[in-house]
Amino acid sequence: MDESRPTPATPPAVLADHAERMEKLLDRLLSPQTLCDEIARPERLRAAMAHGLLGGGKRLRPFLVEQSAALFHANTDAVLRVGAALECVHCYSLIHDDLPAMDDDDLRRGRPTVHRAFDEATAILAGDALLTLAFDIVSSDETDLPPTRKLALVAGLSRAAGIGGMVGGQMRDLEAEKTDRPLAIRDIEMLQSMKTGALLRYACEAGAIAAGASGDERARLRRFGEIVGLSFQLADDLLDLTSDTATTGKATGKDAAANKATLPSLHGIDWTTARLRDLVVEATDLLDPFGSKADILVQTARYIAFRDR
Amino acid sequence: MDESRPTPATPPAVLADHAERMEKLLDRLLSPQTLCDEIARPERLRAAMAHGLLGGGKRLRPFLVEQSAALFHANTDAVLRVGAALECVHCYSLIHDDLPAMDDDDLRRGRPTVHRAFDEATAILAGDALLTLAFDIVSSDETDLPPTRKLALVAGLSRAAGIGGMVGGQMRDLEAEKTDRPLAIRDIEMLQSMKTGALLRYACEAGAIAAGASGDERARLRRFGEIVGLSFQLADDLLDLTSDTATTGKATGKDAAANKATLPSLHGIDWTTARLRDLVVEATDLLDPFGSKADILVQTARYIAFRDR
Repeated sequence: MDESRPTPATPPAVLADHAERMEKLLDRLLSPQTLCDEIARPERLRAAMAHGLLGGGKRLRPFLVEQSAALFHANTDAVLRVGAALECVHCYSLIHDDLPAMDDDDLRRGRPTVHRAFDEATAILAGDALLTLAFDIVSSDETDLPPTRKLALVAGLSRAAGIGGMVGGQMRDLEAEKTDRPLAIRDIEMLQSMKTGALLRYACEAGAIAAGASGDERARLRRFGEIVGLSFQLADDLLDLTSDTATTGKATGKDAAANKATLPSLHGIDWTTARLRDLVVEATDLLDPFGSKADILVQTARYIAFRDR
Repeated sequence: MDESRPTPATPPAVLADHAERMEKLLDRLLSPQTLCDEIARPERLRAAMAHGLLGGGKRLRPFLVEQSAALFHANTDAVLRVGAALECVHCYSLIHDDLPAMDDDDLRRGRPTVHRAFDEATAILAGDALLTLAFDIVSSDETDLPPTRKLALVAGLSRAAGIGGMVGGQMRDLEAEKTDRPLAIRDIEMLQSMKTGALLRYACEAGAIAAGASGDERARLRRFGEIVGLSFQLADDLLDLTSDTATTGKATGKDAAANKATLPSLHGIDWTTARLRDLVVEATDLLDPFGSKADILVQTARYIAFRDR
């Protein structure tokens, strides 16, 4: 094996199976029958929410919730619903990020973004409604978990998604785009740990919370999720630097074109590859106490770090 | 007393006192020390949230939470925090409603709207962050209520604010503005019961939930809140039809100018006045079992129905 360029890792076989089950659940959660009273329901808003939530994505965050909970033998409908709530938050953030006032994107996963398929006002409200729905799903009677766990999940989700987490990270990203001088390395790290890191960190912690894990186990999963978040972003930025569009299926070199400093562009490819190796080692060590039960999570961490698209 | 035109009602004396306490709490919740970790916090986003949340308003929704809880002798910091969460949701909805893609308003309470004082992207994120913060406040350890009550409060808030409630009502309002034919009366009623009604209804129910009231009492407060919502909107539309700007302190005749059908414009002034009287009678009867403890809520219902601005 070439020491400097690891073999691209493959995703766990169960990832695709999970994505399929998640898609079905999300579809059901947004079905006209489930969502809200027929007389009250504005169908156009429901359709816009569905456009932004359904039809794509690896569903990585809910997968991490499920696999983290599985360490504690908790693998229930309730865990799947918690993952679905997290996916609602992730997708609402994409809808709002794509808006003309933000990134002004026309396409997402090869389809028109919500404000292009519908209109701007509808996209804003669809995002708002998905964020709100996430808390509905977690707190609902149908999510069959003890009240204290549901409450811890609500508290954790609101922290991960709020000003100290995802939304704050998006704000920092917007501000960074407006300044002329490139960000310092510590500012890039902080931005990323908030914008993409907070939800990935929470995904792993949420699995532990839903399973009723101890505080120590919860902290361990939280750190694992943090490492996943760091690897995810490093690998993304590395792919942008090194791959061609034919491999990744999306535009590459975007960061350089936008004059956007990333850790790989500042530190170089070798540093990044070594850092990713270190992160995967730390992730593996963290889950060592769980033995073979953690095999899928360890494989997921490897995949996220060394994926080729 | 003139039978057709009731004397304008005055607000309960304690409303202003409550608004002052609420302002202090909201200010504290958004203070740099409380909101999130200093290293993480994007100050511009915090400032935009504060601009949209602080400095004005009667704080009617949190007042209803507090007074409803007071029926059950629950009058604690926790109840005030639940009201603060509701006010965060109310103010986020105003920030997003004011956006160029929606109502495109430059002024709110005599000050520039958030997207005018900051920019559009910041306003979108400030709204998102306030909505998220609401769930943080309710589920936080500092909100000292039993877990089952907090969970019921989260569930109720997400329902009231979601597609079957406030956001759905806003969507209906947008759609109504786009159609040429005026709405049918039942569609106007549905729109209003969602857009403004859902949060007012929930405010009263939330007080009962926070106080650990029985299911029957909770339903009674919910209906009371529904009546408050109906009266609030009827009185608003009536003032738009009959008052002049000098009295209300805001532009009147806006609905007619916008060719917007309201119940007072369709049914007439006498019908509206009679309907408001009936609603106040029903509200008063509903709270009869609580005796003099309900005096302030009854006075609030009268004030909302017969205010002159």
